[in-house]
Amino acid sequence: VLLAGGSGTRFWPASRAARPKQFLPLDGKTPLLVSTWRRALRLASPESIWVVAPAHLAKAVTAMLPDIDPANLVVEPSPRDTAPAITLACAAVADRFPDATVGVFPSDHVIRDSTRFVRAIRVAAAAAGEGALVCLGTRPNRPATGFGYLRCGEPPRTDRAVPVARFVEKPDAARAARFLKSGQYLWNAGMFLWRADRFLEEVRRTAPGIHRAVGRFFSGDENAWQRAPRASVDFAVMEKARNVRAVELDAGWDDVGSWEAAARVRGAAAPSTRNAVLIDSPGAEVFGSERLVAVVDLPDVLVVDTDDAILVVPRGSGQRVKDVVERLKKRGRKELL
Amino acid sequence: VLLAGGSGTRFWPASRAARPKQFLPLDGKTPLLVSTWRRALRLASPESIWVVAPAHLAKAVTAMLPDIDPANLVVEPSPRDTAPAITLACAAVADRFPDATVGVFPSDHVIRDSTRFVRAIRVAAAAAGEGALVCLGTRPNRPATGFGYLRCGEPPRTDRAVPVARFVEKPDAARAARFLKSGQYLWNAGMFLWRADRFLEEVRRTAPGIHRAVGRFFSGDENAWQRAPRASVDFAVMEKARNVRAVELDAGWDDVGSWEAAARVRGAAAPSTRNAVLIDSPGAEVFGSERLVAVVDLPDVLVVDTDDAILVVPRGSGQRVKDVVERLKKRGRKELL
Repeated sequence: VLLAGGSGTRFWPASRAARPKQFLPLDGKTPLLVSTWRRALRLASPESIWVVAPAHLAKAVTAMLPDIDPANLVVEPSPRDTAPAITLACAAVADRFPDATVGVFPSDHVIRDSTRFVRAIRVAAAAAGEGALVCLGTRPNRPATGFGYLRCGEPPRTDRAVPVARFVEKPDAARAARFLKSGQYLWNAGMFLWRADRFLEEVRRTAPGIHRAVGRFFSGDENAWQRAPRASVDFAVMEKARNVRAVELDAGWDDVGSWEAAARVRGAAAPSTRNAVLIDSPGAEVFGSERLVAVVDLPDVLVVDTDDAILVVPRGSGQRVKDVVERLKKRGRKELL
Repeated sequence: VLLAGGSGTRFWPASRAARPKQFLPLDGKTPLLVSTWRRALRLASPESIWVVAPAHLAKAVTAMLPDIDPANLVVEPSPRDTAPAITLACAAVADRFPDATVGVFPSDHVIRDSTRFVRAIRVAAAAAGEGALVCLGTRPNRPATGFGYLRCGEPPRTDRAVPVARFVEKPDAARAARFLKSGQYLWNAGMFLWRADRFLEEVRRTAPGIHRAVGRFFSGDENAWQRAPRASVDFAVMEKARNVRAVELDAGWDDVGSWEAAARVRGAAAPSTRNAVLIDSPGAEVFGSERLVAVVDLPDVLVVDTDDAILVVPRGSGQRVKDVVERLKKRGRKELL
């Protein structure tokens, strides 16, 4: 099950409400959603790959993934965060394949080493087959405050699913430093493996409101969707679920959280510099290749050029793109959002 | 006589070979050529205003100056610097008005105070009527190395034409500092007043090759133009001419030599910021108003947005735009020049 939803403010102006991050070729060549699909093909045939998308993105998803089985596209009438979306997808899968083991994969990150990815998934799938709800997590290499963390009951491993003791929301810098040092924590990569029946059982127990609303929606009550509480699957289900385990994913995972991360990730895959003239600007990067972009005497500046908007920002300030989006909202420039 | 020629590299990407600096609204509202025309209207009626332009710009000039008398558009078959162009214009004027006093005005600068400008021109015109070749010059306020200087035989004045002792090409910084200190120098503004017959007499004496070639061209020998030596009027004629005088022009003259100068000059006349979002970027400026341009955390950056090219450069590096143009030439990107 690939998650194709999500909003798009951190990659403005390339990302917009109707074209969020996962539709962008942030690794330099391929839209992240397509890369996620291709990784999934190493685990399953197309008829076993499902995609959940909010209604306003459904057409774009089908256009981008021509091999998808139309029956496998699960449409959320409106985005209500991951718990309802994943519950709906698992209900749909379980309806056709009651014994299925499901892998849930966001489509807004980069994984550099697909072989190691596949290996970790196989480890996780084995544990899931035995009834665990398995999270994939990446070992922290810095005290990041922008991720959720998994506290493991014993040191995490790539070759075995260890018990998860606790889910920790984005920590402050001091806690993040302690987590990094302890060696017992993983960054929560938002990828999960479980038997569909086991997951739905835990949803019913930990989040009965979601279970009920999604169940009614799935049975044909269109209005029920709006009654599903908005919540992330981590918060609503995983924190309270039984038999939660984690496998370390050591496969070059990168959440590509900003333009500078995109510059780092695409590396040698950067589009030709035919349309960039960089003079005395080491570390400068240009995204967008229609117009010529010339940069003079501005090291480490990032320029993003699109049809109707241009962003100029130094590396290190990429997170402030959301301030631009806020300003545009205040000015009522909906056509640019 | 307005000079409408000139190339356009310092204002790339807004200026191009086919749309040089004087066609741009660098003061924020009006193309410099149109502003020059309007200033001329304070001195003369439209039928007394002549324009010299190279052939490839003639149509653009007529489009921009709809009130021009077509008989007053003097076309150079190809640009050969100012001496042939001004000689040709003065020959054309003298042919119809043998007694004319001519004022020669470049169209690539800004003059903030038209009233003082008119006053200075009247002072210069009086001296020209008595047979002098009169230069207008601006008192230096910094040791600029990018201008030619006029060394006056006595302290320059706004209300009287004083003798010019010498023309000095762009000096180095040390000489420029001495010139500034001495109080005897003016920046050569490239504006002249003289009786057409007196100027042509000096051209015949100081630059006989130009006088002959332009004379033959004016008499109908199309090929003669190519034989006129390329030279500036300062170098070819004024340095050697007799009875050369200068009037100080104290009228907010600015040659607008770079994008940062354009930012300074347009000041409050800057177009609405509807299409610029500047976050923590004091002193940043955006030129071009079609697309939205967002700048974050980059004080004093200048962004120039055009249909097919974008320039990003900090204030202080505006002169390096020519390096971009050179790079594009080397890459054979003629469509962007």
